[in-house]
Amino acid sequence: MSNHFADRLCESVKTRKTSLIVGLDPVYNRLPTAITGHRQMNDEFDAAAAVDAIFDFCTQTMRIIAPMVPGVKINIAYFEKYLWEGIETYYSLINEADDLGLEIIGDVKRGDIGHTAELYASAHLENPELTGLEDTITPDAITVNGYTGADGIEPFAEMATKQGKGIFVLVRTSNSSAAAIQDFTDTDGQRMYEKLAELVSEIANKPERIGKNGYSNVGMVVGGTSPDVTTALRRKYGKIWFLVPGYGSQGASAADCIRFCKPDGTGALINASRSIIYAYEKPQYKGLFGDDWKKCIEQAVIDAKIDLATAMQAKL
Amino acid sequence: MSNHFADRLCESVKTRKTSLIVGLDPVYNRLPTAITGHRQMNDEFDAAAAVDAIFDFCTQTMRIIAPMVPGVKINIAYFEKYLWEGIETYYSLINEADDLGLEIIGDVKRGDIGHTAELYASAHLENPELTGLEDTITPDAITVNGYTGADGIEPFAEMATKQGKGIFVLVRTSNSSAAAIQDFTDTDGQRMYEKLAELVSEIANKPERIGKNGYSNVGMVVGGTSPDVTTALRRKYGKIWFLVPGYGSQGASAADCIRFCKPDGTGALINASRSIIYAYEKPQYKGLFGDDWKKCIEQAVIDAKIDLATAMQAKL
Repeated sequence: MSNHFADRLCESVKTRKTSLIVGLDPVYNRLPTAITGHRQMNDEFDAAAAVDAIFDFCTQTMRIIAPMVPGVKINIAYFEKYLWEGIETYYSLINEADDLGLEIIGDVKRGDIGHTAELYASAHLENPELTGLEDTITPDAITVNGYTGADGIEPFAEMATKQGKGIFVLVRTSNSSAAAIQDFTDTDGQRMYEKLAELVSEIANKPERIGKNGYSNVGMVVGGTSPDVTTALRRKYGKIWFLVPGYGSQGASAADCIRFCKPDGTGALINASRSIIYAYEKPQYKGLFGDDWKKCIEQAVIDAKIDLATAMQAKL
Repeated sequence: MSNHFADRLCESVKTRKTSLIVGLDPVYNRLPTAITGHRQMNDEFDAAAAVDAIFDFCTQTMRIIAPMVPGVKINIAYFEKYLWEGIETYYSLINEADDLGLEIIGDVKRGDIGHTAELYASAHLENPELTGLEDTITPDAITVNGYTGADGIEPFAEMATKQGKGIFVLVRTSNSSAAAIQDFTDTDGQRMYEKLAELVSEIANKPERIGKNGYSNVGMVVGGTSPDVTTALRRKYGKIWFLVPGYGSQGASAADCIRFCKPDGTGALINASRSIIYAYEKPQYKGLFGDDWKKCIEQAVIDAKIDLATAMQAKL
């Protein structure tokens, strides 16, 4: 396995023949009753029971998807809700995901400057060498908020590079109110997010960050819902991996999302969360597989892969 | 005690006669040897020993400062470094600070949109009603990163208002590379941070957020190092509490910082971290008090309060 994050992504995307990754956003009340009905996990108001159920669900889900997709994105907010109990579960899941050979993106959106940024980078990208935590591993990459500028991004990029890992910096999000800030436009017609993308690109293009496939370990998060944004960024930043939320439940189509991919399929990770992990709630899958929630998830992954592959073929 | 965060701040700032708050950024290697020399806390590579030492240091420090300052800012990154062990310690410290009557700002800089933002808001502002976590309380206010726009700020503001708590949104940070992003200027000459301030102000000015002293529970984080920025923001946003980092070790003077205060001394919390909590490292205090690290911290707080009061007097 390569010790460069971007090279591992290339390999894994080519082997699994897809840019699709699965986002784990587990909410106790939406878990299958086969899990929450278990007598040790049937109390949503008991922190230990709730995180056990979430751990069980996520682990079983990852076993289903691991042979089919290059990675998972784990959203730490769903774990922070359970305070330290949740954080322990979050790191346990990372160990499980690693055993399954998945690339793991910790969706933590941390951001700060100086020593504080270094500490966040250490917590989320460095495997702790501390008695009591020595068996814990950290994600292969994390998401970073870059509002504080280069000072706030570089400590994360440095740590990621040292550890053979990666970061994805939030550049353009797909929520409706993002434009007020991120599309703020200067006298030269440059937008705020374009300025930030430029700044991320400078950090990403340092020679020590580029892998043998020509990609940097420093990437960008860009929502899939604005096709014009997408095409321009893909063309301009050839060395960048894009992490693309918004496919599936959030309304971005396969055609929108695959604009971030190069013709060989590399260059973007297209994330679907709820449309996959809660597939068993949908009549289309329930009708086919009844209460077999795992089969529903498996089929949803297959369908999403076909959807993306078809869109990719149509583009070529 | 008022159930409106901004009113509690007014009361506490007036009672303590200062805008100074103390930032807890505890690094094991800088703790007094009286603590790290203890046989149960003398191994920096043992997670439990390290967090015990940090907890002990912060608790003792808070006992010294509680009668003198309105609040503490606890930087969660210093705890996240110890993963779930650190997070448990972070929440334990909040309980201690609350017992001491301090207003507690969780410096967490979380930011996201939609359901994810709601979960972060719940983790950091709502007292958990979960078996196993029921004795835990959350901070009085947290810092929030607003790069995603109103969608990313409102869920935090809503939760804070519901809980009688507050938020401080990052508007202008004082690090050297912040300008590239935050001073980005549009065709009308408006800067990025001014745009964000405007947006925060709209959220802050909703009637349900304004307390009896006329301040909102939604405030802004603005670095103390740019006097022109400060004066303009203070004049424009009368209902806003500013959280001002940068006083002390980071180079902002008392005169710079008190520009954020109104003539009655309310309207700003001026944070000093390292210059206070590591006062015992400085020759000026060591010379006076020898190894009595607590006396050094106490004196540093007194000196900082006098420094700010003098600057305030000179301004009036």
